[in-house]
Amino acid sequence: MKIPDVLVIESEHRPGSLGRILTAIGDLGVVVEHLVAVRRDQDKTVWEVTVELEEHQMNELAECIEQLPNARLLGESDRVFDRHRGGKIHMVSKVAFDSLGQMRDLYTPGVARVCLAVLKEPEKVNDYTNLPNTVAIVTDGSAVLGLGNIGALAGLPVMEGKSMIYARNVGVSAVPILFDESDPEKIIDAVVAIAPSFGAIHLEDIASPACFRIEAALRERLDKPVLHDDQHGTAVVTLAALISASRHVGLDLNNSVVGHIGLGAAGIGIARLLNRYGVVKSLGSDLNETAVKRFEKTGGKGVALEELVAKSHVVIATTGVKDLIHPEWIQEGQMIFALSNPEPEIDPHVALQRGASFAIDGSGLNNALGFPALFRGALDARARQFTDAMLFAAAEKIAELAPEDKMLPDVMDREVHAAIAAAVRDAALNDK
Amino acid sequence: MKIPDVLVIESEHRPGSLGRILTAIGDLGVVVEHLVAVRRDQDKTVWEVTVELEEHQMNELAECIEQLPNARLLGESDRVFDRHRGGKIHMVSKVAFDSLGQMRDLYTPGVARVCLAVLKEPEKVNDYTNLPNTVAIVTDGSAVLGLGNIGALAGLPVMEGKSMIYARNVGVSAVPILFDESDPEKIIDAVVAIAPSFGAIHLEDIASPACFRIEAALRERLDKPVLHDDQHGTAVVTLAALISASRHVGLDLNNSVVGHIGLGAAGIGIARLLNRYGVVKSLGSDLNETAVKRFEKTGGKGVALEELVAKSHVVIATTGVKDLIHPEWIQEGQMIFALSNPEPEIDPHVALQRGASFAIDGSGLNNALGFPALFRGALDARARQFTDAMLFAAAEKIAELAPEDKMLPDVMDREVHAAIAAAVRDAALNDK
Repeated sequence: MKIPDVLVIESEHRPGSLGRILTAIGDLGVVVEHLVAVRRDQDKTVWEVTVELEEHQMNELAECIEQLPNARLLGESDRVFDRHRGGKIHMVSKVAFDSLGQMRDLYTPGVARVCLAVLKEPEKVNDYTNLPNTVAIVTDGSAVLGLGNIGALAGLPVMEGKSMIYARNVGVSAVPILFDESDPEKIIDAVVAIAPSFGAIHLEDIASPACFRIEAALRERLDKPVLHDDQHGTAVVTLAALISASRHVGLDLNNSVVGHIGLGAAGIGIARLLNRYGVVKSLGSDLNETAVKRFEKTGGKGVALEELVAKSHVVIATTGVKDLIHPEWIQEGQMIFALSNPEPEIDPHVALQRGASFAIDGSGLNNALGFPALFRGALDARARQFTDAMLFAAAEKIAELAPEDKMLPDVMDREVHAAIAAAVRDAALNDK
Repeated sequence: MKIPDVLVIESEHRPGSLGRILTAIGDLGVVVEHLVAVRRDQDKTVWEVTVELEEHQMNELAECIEQLPNARLLGESDRVFDRHRGGKIHMVSKVAFDSLGQMRDLYTPGVARVCLAVLKEPEKVNDYTNLPNTVAIVTDGSAVLGLGNIGALAGLPVMEGKSMIYARNVGVSAVPILFDESDPEKIIDAVVAIAPSFGAIHLEDIASPACFRIEAALRERLDKPVLHDDQHGTAVVTLAALISASRHVGLDLNNSVVGHIGLGAAGIGIARLLNRYGVVKSLGSDLNETAVKRFEKTGGKGVALEELVAKSHVVIATTGVKDLIHPEWIQEGQMIFALSNPEPEIDPHVALQRGASFAIDGSGLNNALGFPALFRGALDARARQFTDAMLFAAAEKIAELAPEDKMLPDVMDREVHAAIAAAVRDAALNDK
């Protein structure tokens, strides 16, 4: 994985100094991403040079700059850590609040009347509090990114990242709720107990099989939307890309064979959603036999890895195993989704070179296109649960919004999220 | 209780129109707080007239304006409800986040490195997440303001109010955590389970005796600060006002008799804190005998209400019963804290007229001076619990910061909160 690094380098202010520094960096195979002069003294200049490099290259780079005659490495700052300092989210006041008069309306004594209004008509809580904009991001940190069971505390930066994306893209207030606990029953009981605090429950980075039990129990016990993002959010974005790509290459999804490599939370979530969407011919492969049996219950067939790749029109991999798919297995015209983060099962460029008609990895298939609008739409409809109609509506809208030359729309475009959310909301309201 | 109301009135644009309107309002005994012309047509003007009135006066006022020859009531808007619309708090991003490049640092793939850094050194969660700025405001809504057991949902506007105050005054991200549950053991288990999500636990508006059990159990089971604000936050601000007022009137607290009327959460919290601070001569009165026995365990003596007022130098009432203290009971030079909100046990003006040397009600003794800095200080010190030293430090600093002519400092002054928080933090660090 490449690390963004900002080098602070002092160079003598004479012809060729900077050129030599940049050439030395280039000789190590490192690309300069950005360059700024931050200070100019009489005969010296201080530069900030942004590069992206592998962790093992860091020392090498420092040594090589130190050896140059006219340059000195003053320090380096890691942009990722710099950006994380102090955390990524915070709770703030939505209203003007700068005088005792405002305080008397917004807190005591004024607030008592609002409380009594809600007591009389509980629905009013949706008008006079932020409740209908809130989501709990619940995790035990047992399956964080491709990192595995690192625990909820170490997973918190990811949860804050999700919350940040919620806030920016759809205005949802998402609160990380962390469990040290790994007993699903205790997590279920605690989430049910605190559920009145939130409009919906987003389950995140919980390993299988606990994630299935937790989601099923919460869906049954709560009268509000519950969704395990790793299963369904990822599945929605995958389905969207599949719809989009199939249109481009003229593939008939309903008569195609889709092979699923890896049948954990994400894999089974994708397989199930595709199956319910009408993709009925599916193969599955996983080292875990229980996972394969769970998959076969959806009507799919368990096969060996190489056989799966040989027989599938579409291959979807969610194993967390880098380079699992050998380039020579790829078939002409095959569609490849190598979704493990940050290292895919096969480099999409390699797959395309080997004749794939379409190839994408996890960074291309950003699941941030899914969860924000799914929850925004569900909240806006005051939906009591997520239905297939809502998930399909999201996937179809995402596919529809993709520009001509791309499979998916821009994840940074707020209008995209608003349009997906509206489709989800309408689907929910039609279901009611 | 007075309600702020904004009347939207159209008047003919001719001499005397506005005067007649305002005179009519005045004749009903209603004071005009603010007046704005919001639109001027050819021969008409639309005014927004802000008044504060009792609920029963609203219809009367509307009728009286309708009867004026040159005026028409276009509508009215309730400022308190207007200000609450959409809620008072929301979660937002703390960092610049507007490009895919930033997303790659703040979310995948960059965030994985931050997760691994926290996994390796858990303390780093305090550097790279918002965790050390977070507080859970936990409530079951069983004792909200003076409204009683209205439930957590109807209590949410109060919890959002607390969160808003936290955000503005000390930059703490406070998240309302609501329980429909009234079984203390279930609340305790759920809070313990989700405690990793927060830097500290603020218990709020939980009725006695459950509040005692919940606080004690959480203090024992959690390695982070836990405080029931109704007991200790209110007690700290009361002690501060008492220190401040005693200095003004030259009362020796350690040799004075303090009488506590009402021995619920707030009353017992105040009695206990004062006792530990050295105010050892105390009387207590409550209709609930268990509450009186609980009080007597702190060394105080249970007596009848009238006897208590007759024998105490300082009377502190937290009963929720309006006008409980008869004016003729007040003694010359007595200090009166009539703290029930929104209606005090005796109007402070009446108490002063009857010879009290000092009198204050709940709105004067704003507990928003207490909790924000108490938690900010505890979080900043990474304290594992609240100690008496921290509570005393807060009370003394609050008293110290009061201007010459007031008993308490300005609750809207952020520097006041910062100074109290620093005192709490230092006391916590000295204790370590």
